[in-house]
Amino acid sequence: MAQEIPIPNTQQLAWQQAELGVVFHYDIHVFDNKPYNQADNRITPISNIHLFKPAHLDVEQWVISAKESGAKFAIITATHETGFALYPSKANPYNTSALGWKNGKEDLVGDFIKACRKHDIKPGVYLGIRWNSYLGIHDFKAIGTGDVQKKRQQDYNEMVEKMVTEICTWYGPLFEIWFDGGASSPDKGAPNVLPIVKKYQPNSLFYHNDQLAEARWGGSETGTVNYPCWSTFPFPYTGSGESAPESIYKNGYALLKTGDPNGSYFMPAMADAPLRGTGGRHEWFWEPGDEKTIYPLSDLMDMYRKSVGRNATLILGVTPDTSGLVPSQDRLRLQELGNEIKRQYGSPIKNTSSEKFIIKFPTLQEVQQLILAEDLSYGQRIRSFHIDAKTKTGWKTIFTGTSIGQKCIISLEHGLNCTEIKLHIDHAIGSPKIINFNAYDTF
Amino acid sequence: MAQEIPIPNTQQLAWQQAELGVVFHYDIHVFDNKPYNQADNRITPISNIHLFKPAHLDVEQWVISAKESGAKFAIITATHETGFALYPSKANPYNTSALGWKNGKEDLVGDFIKACRKHDIKPGVYLGIRWNSYLGIHDFKAIGTGDVQKKRQQDYNEMVEKMVTEICTWYGPLFEIWFDGGASSPDKGAPNVLPIVKKYQPNSLFYHNDQLAEARWGGSETGTVNYPCWSTFPFPYTGSGESAPESIYKNGYALLKTGDPNGSYFMPAMADAPLRGTGGRHEWFWEPGDEKTIYPLSDLMDMYRKSVGRNATLILGVTPDTSGLVPSQDRLRLQELGNEIKRQYGSPIKNTSSEKFIIKFPTLQEVQQLILAEDLSYGQRIRSFHIDAKTKTGWKTIFTGTSIGQKCIISLEHGLNCTEIKLHIDHAIGSPKIINFNAYDTF
Repeated sequence: MAQEIPIPNTQQLAWQQAELGVVFHYDIHVFDNKPYNQADNRITPISNIHLFKPAHLDVEQWVISAKESGAKFAIITATHETGFALYPSKANPYNTSALGWKNGKEDLVGDFIKACRKHDIKPGVYLGIRWNSYLGIHDFKAIGTGDVQKKRQQDYNEMVEKMVTEICTWYGPLFEIWFDGGASSPDKGAPNVLPIVKKYQPNSLFYHNDQLAEARWGGSETGTVNYPCWSTFPFPYTGSGESAPESIYKNGYALLKTGDPNGSYFMPAMADAPLRGTGGRHEWFWEPGDEKTIYPLSDLMDMYRKSVGRNATLILGVTPDTSGLVPSQDRLRLQELGNEIKRQYGSPIKNTSSEKFIIKFPTLQEVQQLILAEDLSYGQRIRSFHIDAKTKTGWKTIFTGTSIGQKCIISLEHGLNCTEIKLHIDHAIGSPKIINFNAYDTF
Repeated sequence: MAQEIPIPNTQQLAWQQAELGVVFHYDIHVFDNKPYNQADNRITPISNIHLFKPAHLDVEQWVISAKESGAKFAIITATHETGFALYPSKANPYNTSALGWKNGKEDLVGDFIKACRKHDIKPGVYLGIRWNSYLGIHDFKAIGTGDVQKKRQQDYNEMVEKMVTEICTWYGPLFEIWFDGGASSPDKGAPNVLPIVKKYQPNSLFYHNDQLAEARWGGSETGTVNYPCWSTFPFPYTGSGESAPESIYKNGYALLKTGDPNGSYFMPAMADAPLRGTGGRHEWFWEPGDEKTIYPLSDLMDMYRKSVGRNATLILGVTPDTSGLVPSQDRLRLQELGNEIKRQYGSPIKNTSSEKFIIKFPTLQEVQQLILAEDLSYGQRIRSFHIDAKTKTGWKTIFTGTSIGQKCIISLEHGLNCTEIKLHIDHAIGSPKIINFNAYDTF
């Protein structure tokens, strides 16, 4: 190979191959009977943890809902912006054990991970450390000034580092550890979490701090990325807020959305979106009376094609309610999504992974969609390609593309009748490694 | 009666009659292996509550130690300046239930109060709400600025009010509720605790906030007050820090030390001191290797005479150690104190409460000490008096005094040989109510 190209590590490859995940947001303020106001939530401590009172709490039902959507992994917010830990942390007294349930051993995170393993879903944990309204932490900084601030910061950082150690050592291997908004870096006075994750969870996807990002935010919370969306990036991290390299934030996060085919670092994109995200709403947390904001199935399929179908990993935000369950309408939509993905992509008319990249049909065949896939363990070798189809009127080019990666879904508007389809690799670094080239008559 | 004088309410009378109490200080930082530094403690949050690990915790042993000292009541710091609650508060998640002991029901306060009732000691609770290093509360104020500060303050105040409700409603009648450093007042943005205590614990001594003080600090932590020390005061409160009427703070707290015989408010004085308070040390909390700073018995008896013997209530600070017990040397000293008080004052040679105020001996008698006592339910009626004794050389005045109150101990240096002792009331408001006039040959 003339040119070295970045390849994924174990966890990045697994994360791209998983394609679809679910993140569950759950925190005390779900129970406050008020619309979620993130800005307010970040500055409003909630000492009264007994607001948190799910009558029918069943995290296994959450995991089953994720499974039904077709997700291969599921993530739980061990802490979000109140700072309340959903597990009996020894480091952080503001946690579920103080509720006095199950003899002080109530552990949503542990139960969630157990349920994941039972249902063959890969478990991940989300830790919000950037904000902690209970302790007065704002954008990683303890409020106050002088020695008071210094002491609070020191205690907070130690607490976070111990929590990360707990999460990394109590529950077995984790698929992903998600530090929301990034985990900043010790250089900037924030907790030093990277060495802990690397020590105890070397095969967990680290997302992310100012030192490293093993995946990147895809630049929006729409559940979509641009096409092309490369799994490579010019920096080993993306930063967060003011700490980000300036180029990342230009042009509406264009670099996050597209990546850089010549970037030196493997860093696949996450397309994230809340399931309740239509009709002018965008809800990571459950709120009463908002079932009508659940995305219609057609929107979700469009999202799927514009994320998974563009080489990104799609993570849907699902909102357990005050009863402690995924609401029935949300669960139904997840089931519909899982069924629809199977219906559309479960049974290709024909697939090939031969080096000839040709699909032949015995007779004229209507084709609605195509899927291409590279063996990403070799990195994104293919840089441009086109697809020709042999129709009644002869060969014609039906698609011209660049990135393939884990999955490239090509929808053919109004279908296409043909007897043969051929993939031409126009430019690749090293020999191309196509592992799937499938045709579907479904849409 | 020509002049109305202030009389004690139920709890004030009981508190004066109790004369001697013990306060136990216990908090997480006892376990940090460092000398206690109050200024530092106030600004250093301790998230790691699992430092708190008394291997042989036995609060009944504390209560027995108090009992052995002769104390009639005992007080426990439900919270001190870290903010850590020694009981499973529902309002404050930073508490013993988060330790995960006894199925999350560990309750030092409840156990302590139970032990008090078992051993016929009146239970009191101390609440530190002025400082809370865990939550960043300094002198009642949440740190920070703007909306963040406002929201934190609001949550803190609500939390404190709920905690006070818990303390007032969970454990039965309390002898005293001690808000250390005062509880400020709602006018100044602090929690509104007085109505809660008055509603649920109307017969508990309220000490104190900017609205009311049912007892006053005696102006030092030496375990002594001035003579005279009147049980009356010109204000219904003493304030704290900058909120105090200026006159209280003049001349080294002289007004707190002496009270004011013409004050309109009944407000007896507390003389407080830590048991470990000699040799340049002054320890409210246990520290390693400081047994030698326990006051010698003679100092404690001197303290007793200069507090209880001057109409104040003496409260000794005792320091349970990291094992969870009152250390053996401290307990021994408390036992010695209890025994010595009994030895010196348990068996008067003679006592009288007759209206003639005369003690007569059949033959020449050596007298070492005298005790006078008013029936305080009528208030401090006696404003000046003198005592004459009939010696071999005839009658002579052996003491001239002012305040009597609950107890006035008169030590006669080198003893006095006499056949008769007579108390002369020189000035009283209304008819004097002497209930004890005892002579002792012990010292």
